[in-house]
Amino acid sequence: MSDATPLPGEPVALAHASRLINHGPTVLVATAHGGRRNVMAAAWSMPVEFTPPRVAVVIDKSTYTRELAAAAGAFALGIPGRALADLTFTVGSCSGREGDKFARYGIEAVPGPVLGQPLLAGCVAWLECRLIPEPHTEAAYDTCFAEVLWAAADPRVFRDGRWSFRDDNTELHTLHHLGAGAFAWPGQAIQANRLTG
Amino acid sequence: MSDATPLPGEPVALAHASRLINHGPTVLVATAHGGRRNVMAAAWSMPVEFTPPRVAVVIDKSTYTRELAAAAGAFALGIPGRALADLTFTVGSCSGREGDKFARYGIEAVPGPVLGQPLLAGCVAWLECRLIPEPHTEAAYDTCFAEVLWAAADPRVFRDGRWSFRDDNTELHTLHHLGAGAFAWPGQAIQANRLTG
Repeated sequence: MSDATPLPGEPVALAHASRLINHGPTVLVATAHGGRRNVMAAAWSMPVEFTPPRVAVVIDKSTYTRELAAAAGAFALGIPGRALADLTFTVGSCSGREGDKFARYGIEAVPGPVLGQPLLAGCVAWLECRLIPEPHTEAAYDTCFAEVLWAAADPRVFRDGRWSFRDDNTELHTLHHLGAGAFAWPGQAIQANRLTG
Repeated sequence: MSDATPLPGEPVALAHASRLINHGPTVLVATAHGGRRNVMAAAWSMPVEFTPPRVAVVIDKSTYTRELAAAAGAFALGIPGRALADLTFTVGSCSGREGDKFARYGIEAVPGPVLGQPLLAGCVAWLECRLIPEPHTEAAYDTCFAEVLWAAADPRVFRDGRWSFRDDNTELHTLHHLGAGAFAWPGQAIQANRLTG
């Protein structure tokens, strides 16, 4: 990292990293290794542990992203907001083997501070992850486990360990893929109460 | 199943089962084995495969649900709508070892048609799942893999393989846990377009 490329967002404590994907947003998986790079969309991810913060992401074994992530032993997750819906759908619908998606779609990125994986401009949160090799689940379920080593978020929509989806920041709300390019997005939030029984 | 206990919702083709949790809703994991039963909330689940339809759910090894699911080799997922926010938060905040949650909170259920696992009344979708034993990932990440053998959904909010979140069915919209009982819910959906590059 040079001083000329500031990191995006504000740091998120690792104890709060799971909160970033707890509610099931679609994520962008970005990878870089040996001068090659790629980005794809993944609707299938989840936290699996709070401490240390760990996640699972389904990355099909046929994808260029999987090849690069395996080579790098790492990837970055970017969480796109509503403003990136078209880009998210687009990078989920084509392969990086056909050409560099960053150049093709004008995607900017800076290297992450721990693993050098691409942090995508315009996302609302970022997690740098180190792959935990699990050959069986990677082969049987395309499920890749990883440890989160660094996280950050846009403070306009995630602050003090919490998402804040409001009417005045709808372009930053997360995307939740319903299929075929249709995304739900959280218009509002409600606070549940414990029932007495 | 007797004729007196009709199954909830309308059947969902197994090819569309992944769509039910594709967008990251919080689910209720319901289990029954040998006269014992339980239900808990799980924010951490995802599809891992379309065909055969398979899912992964994080179920902590200390929970009563995990004990029953392992004994039954099965569980049912119920997807709660907004109307069940308080119940979802509540059953996620107490243990079935302290007493039967169904009786305590007035939860009704019918046995699933394939595995006899509890299908919870009031949910908006249901998946009956057979556990795929994976001792390593169950131990290391509390991650349980399962195959979906049957699925159904409330046709007022899921039809023809698609969620339909509208202003006239908000009580049926899915819940997405932000933490500490705060749930986002999809107020609206947008259709993304492919960018030309």
